[in-house]
Amino acid sequence: MQLDFYKAFSINVDLAIEAHDLARGQTGREIPGVIVDREKYENSSVTIVKVIEEQAEQLMGKPRGNYITIEAPVLRENNRLAQQEVAEVLAKKLTSLFNLPESANILLVGMGNWNATPDALGPRVIDQSMVTRHLFKYAPEELSDGMRPVSAIAPGVLGITGIETAEIIKGVVEKIQPELIIVVDSLAAGSVDRIATTIQIADTGISPGSGIGNKRAGVNRESMGVPVIAIGVPTVVHAAVIAQVTVEQFLEQLKTNPVLEQIYKNLRPDFTQQVINQVLQPFAGNLMVTPKEIDALILNISKIVAGGISMALHPSISFDEYNLYLN
Amino acid sequence: MQLDFYKAFSINVDLAIEAHDLARGQTGREIPGVIVDREKYENSSVTIVKVIEEQAEQLMGKPRGNYITIEAPVLRENNRLAQQEVAEVLAKKLTSLFNLPESANILLVGMGNWNATPDALGPRVIDQSMVTRHLFKYAPEELSDGMRPVSAIAPGVLGITGIETAEIIKGVVEKIQPELIIVVDSLAAGSVDRIATTIQIADTGISPGSGIGNKRAGVNRESMGVPVIAIGVPTVVHAAVIAQVTVEQFLEQLKTNPVLEQIYKNLRPDFTQQVINQVLQPFAGNLMVTPKEIDALILNISKIVAGGISMALHPSISFDEYNLYLN
Amino acid sequence: MQLDFYKAFSINVDLAIEAHDLARGQTGREIPGVIVDREKYENSSVTIVKVIEEQAEQLMGKPRGNYITIEAPVLRENNRLAQQEVAEVLAKKLTSLFNLPESANILLVGMGNWNATPDALGPRVIDQSMVTRHLFKYAPEELSDGMRPVSAIAPGVLGITGIETAEIIKGVVEKIQPELIIVVDSLAAGSVDRIATTIQIADTGISPGSGIGNKRAGVNRESMGVPVIAIGVPTVVHAAVIAQVTVEQFLEQLKTNPVLEQIYKNLRPDFTQQVINQVLQPFAGNLMVTPKEIDALILNISKIVAGGISMALHPSISFDEYNLYLN
Amino acid sequence: MQLDFYKAFSINVDLAIEAHDLARGQTGREIPGVIVDREKYENSSVTIVKVIEEQAEQLMGKPRGNYITIEAPVLRENNRLAQQEVAEVLAKKLTSLFNLPESANILLVGMGNWNATPDALGPRVIDQSMVTRHLFKYAPEELSDGMRPVSAIAPGVLGITGIETAEIIKGVVEKIQPELIIVVDSLAAGSVDRIATTIQIADTGISPGSGIGNKRAGVNRESMGVPVIAIGVPTVVHAAVIAQVTVEQFLEQLKTNPVLEQIYKNLRPDFTQQVINQVLQPFAGNLMVTPKEIDALILNISKIVAGGISMALHPSISFDEYNLYLN
Repeated sequence: MQLDFYKAFSINVDLAIEAHDLARGQTGREIPGVIVDREKYENSSVTIVKVIEEQAEQLMGKPRGNYITIEAPVLRENNRLAQQEVAEVLAKKLTSLFNLPESANILLVGMGNWNATPDALGPRVIDQSMVTRHLFKYAPEELSDGMRPVSAIAPGVLGITGIETAEIIKGVVEKIQPELIIVVDSLAAGSVDRIATTIQIADTGISPGSGIGNKRAGVNRESMGVPVIAIGVPTVVHAAVIAQVTVEQFLEQLKTNPVLEQIYKNLRPDFTQQVINQVLQPFAGNLMVTPKEIDALILNISKIVAGGISMALHPSISFDEYNLYLN
Repeated sequence: MQLDFYKAFSINVDLAIEAHDLARGQTGREIPGVIVDREKYENSSVTIVKVIEEQAEQLMGKPRGNYITIEAPVLRENNRLAQQEVAEVLAKKLTSLFNLPESANILLVGMGNWNATPDALGPRVIDQSMVTRHLFKYAPEELSDGMRPVSAIAPGVLGITGIETAEIIKGVVEKIQPELIIVVDSLAAGSVDRIATTIQIADTGISPGSGIGNKRAGVNRESMGVPVIAIGVPTVVHAAVIAQVTVEQFLEQLKTNPVLEQIYKNLRPDFTQQVINQVLQPFAGNLMVTPKEIDALILNISKIVAGGISMALHPSISFDEYNLYLN
Repeated sequence: MQLDFYKAFSINVDLAIEAHDLARGQTGREIPGVIVDREKYENSSVTIVKVIEEQAEQLMGKPRGNYITIEAPVLRENNRLAQQEVAEVLAKKLTSLFNLPESANILLVGMGNWNATPDALGPRVIDQSMVTRHLFKYAPEELSDGMRPVSAIAPGVLGITGIETAEIIKGVVEKIQPELIIVVDSLAAGSVDRIATTIQIADTGISPGSGIGNKRAGVNRESMGVPVIAIGVPTVVHAAVIAQVTVEQFLEQLKTNPVLEQIYKNLRPDFTQQVINQVLQPFAGNLMVTPKEIDALILNISKIVAGGISMALHPSISFDEYNLYLN
Repeated sequence: MQLDFYKAFSINVDLAIEAHDLARGQTGREIPGVIVDREKYENSSVTIVKVIEEQAEQLMGKPRGNYITIEAPVLRENNRLAQQEVAEVLAKKLTSLFNLPESANILLVGMGNWNATPDALGPRVIDQSMVTRHLFKYAPEELSDGMRPVSAIAPGVLGITGIETAEIIKGVVEKIQPELIIVVDSLAAGSVDRIATTIQIADTGISPGSGIGNKRAGVNRESMGVPVIAIGVPTVVHAAVIAQVTVEQFLEQLKTNPVLEQIYKNLRPDFTQQVINQVLQPFAGNLMVTPKEIDALILNISKIVAGGISMALHPSISFDEYNLYLN
């Protein structure tokens, strides 16, 4: 698949690891200005894509910065020990992206629409996070050493509030002046096996148009005035992507036939796109593919993400203590 | 598309109107033993498919009986007046399928999983229905003339209860001995424009395997011992169907090329199926396509279905009174 | 009952109409600096208490301003026509408290905790309100004349966000600069028959400590820099109030006995309070009395309040159109 | 307080431990035909009341059988280790009430109204229970040794279904023929400190009128034809009880005054009751006292109850494995 396809359908490539693959697909080799690292854990593998130069930024459609992807198919298996390990990997990799004193004030933001299951990951993570900022003032006896003042909001979506999400966040940021913002959002992936099994951590924040809720403005250091780390989990694949991948795979399998390859090459570039548009009428870009059990999958991964964040922000807290605190 | 495709993916064709099209597609002409009638209303059109002979039953994969389909794209438009009209059409067509005295005891059954949005239509309809059976005994002053004793259950799904849904219903039926059962369920359609806009009413009840929750046993006159009318609304399209339709449309557009048509004819029948299976790994038959706003669409249509049922069962109740009663 | 009792239990008297009664009870006559008006409608009665002078402010414990109370026991009766009338009275009285051009930008704020049923009125009203601010920019074709740009937030509570509610609101206010803020909150009443039947509209906003969620900071013109109208509905009575009223009624009935009256006069002022504290251990001030059907009552009244607000803010909208819009 | 008071308000004494105290209060000494045992655990204490003779049954208003009460104030403290211990005590005491082979088929029933927070304990416990009956047939590979076939239903309440809860249960029981029924229900207590801290296990099942949802028919061995164990947790105190206790405590404190005692003795027996009725108008018996955080308390205790039941029914399952299974 090519980036052009995504543009034609106004679909954002949310995962840097997929944007990287798409960009490499175009050139046939590693992109100049990108460094890739890999780490292997018992229940997950981690890929770190560093976008360093402007050329890479252009090719991948992703701003310069660090993109850490945790892939853990075990998350779909309801295995609490494996989950705990993935939460710990998330905590470790998240911690690697900031350097803050123990007193640093941190704001969590859960993006998305709590009334639409696949877009509700952000608000769900907020529900399960260890929020402590008020305790420093009103109940310090409930705190232990190694806990930071953390606050959290779920700002809703434009259709519910009438206000750009970025405006609400910015308003709160100006009041409470956090030293770091961590934003959690639902993403769309290019492949269904990523749903609820892949976690992306990016120190570039959220770009306009990313996520499944079509944000119109970015939430990043530029717009907020403080560093922003975005944590995203794919919860859907656009139906248009499924359709496109199917046609491509179909043609791929037939490629040995030289006549067919010739016909394929002669297709107008927007031919497949027109076919797909017709199939997906009247919803087009708004049709999502999700597994039947999406409600349960999102509940599960929201606990892991909230646990990982809580361990990263409160260094004295283990996963068991997180569970104990949140019950 | 052919019925074979559905069988290969173990996907049921839930809508008789689609099964009829698929069966006609195979033969190229009207199926013997089927009578089709059409009615036109301001905001909806109605198709009545009567499956009369065994041959038609075989070809369509639908038991003999009456299948009434209401198609109302206006349901997606948040227009309360149009909704009201559709609810009235539903009430009228539902009424045409039974002939019961005013004292007849009727049981509503909301099939499906309340924890999985697209499968939650049945339980939502139950929530909004006018349940009166207990009032006849405990609060007759709240009843007016022209109301029947109606009871309602949402039996849950096998994964939640450990019990076949049909067993729970049968147990309740034996206790309260209704003269009619009306079962409401979420369906899968062959096309996304049917989602939350099409209502099927069938006096054949529910066949094994139909609906998006994979029922293992039927809920029909045979299993229950009383007449069963099923009301179904498509809330999803299987991702495999989207993929298949896309490939077919793609090839359709290229058919003018004789070489391509030849290649297509030479494909092994399961070739497309293998491609699709690969794309949909690891979920295969469990991947669903829904519009982003599915939660709101289901809430909306559940009110219309519950209103239509209430008007049919309680002949003295208008849509306004239904609203007033339910608030 | 006396104001002292409320102070002893740190319970706020949320309804001005009750504070007025308590204050009059102390002096035995009308309070100087207060003007009271009454209006009668078919399904409701309205009391307007104007607190004009500082002395009245002190005696009643309510800042100077207008307090409009709508009492409508019919709201508990599930009668949609009566509800509509009450919503219209609410719209009319709300409108009397502001004077704004049609282009005025208005912010709705739903105070309270969406996870605690009796405190969830504010967020529920937001869910059902006609939010339009974004349509002016992105979809003007969905607007009709006589609609104002309205935005809406549910800021959550301190225990969930770690941030004072007033800080979040102030942050948003500074970004979007509304000309008026309307705040909706759950209140505590002195009598159970007010639950979900009484609506208070006050142009003084919300004072620190009012509402059932113990706000620590006010949301009013002083703190926000723009006019703030508060709409509150009682959803609970403090258990301590029920206990106190019972003892008082009990003694009242015995007052004809002169010995008893003597004993009562000799009681230490905190005697009853100690008894009550003992009975309510270990929850004390956090025990609430609600009717069993509180979930349904709150859902119902939230629709009426949201409808009344929407009609007041969008003068071209009738209650039917409000229903049609919101579906 | 006296049993007469409860009768006057049609309030059931749900907890045997309270009925025992009330009955002893009347006689001033141990009731003939009752045996009481006590056990002490680190985080809980257990009282076993055996009602053996008919006279005791009459005096206490409780059918003959075993009533085990676990009191664990620590349950309100969000301490997972203590919770786990209480769940284990529950499992142990529950196990002591039945003697069944490993293959025994058991039905869990969650009584109550999922739409009314304090009455929703039963359905919540069902949500969190290890249901396995279907796995024996469809997925035996997911089972380990030492697991029994368990099924579970939440039958709803009369106002929602129009059907007596006992009828629905009986219908299901006749279909699946369990060897034991375990019924979970919300109870009302005589004291607020029991809310979400006390668990009652009774091998007498559920008597007509018990629980906060006013059951009209019993769910017990007599009506179901198989043994029924009821597990109940107080989630409310009737407001009338709070009012009554307050008056009694008030008078108790004044008893040293001989004149007052004389007056009190001369009161008509229904005097206090009339006062209370007046205070609680228009809700009377339907007013409940709950702590503000009741939603969170019920969520918490439902996990402990579900965990305890799962360990008792599946002897091979530890609390950690229960968590792992349920995630």
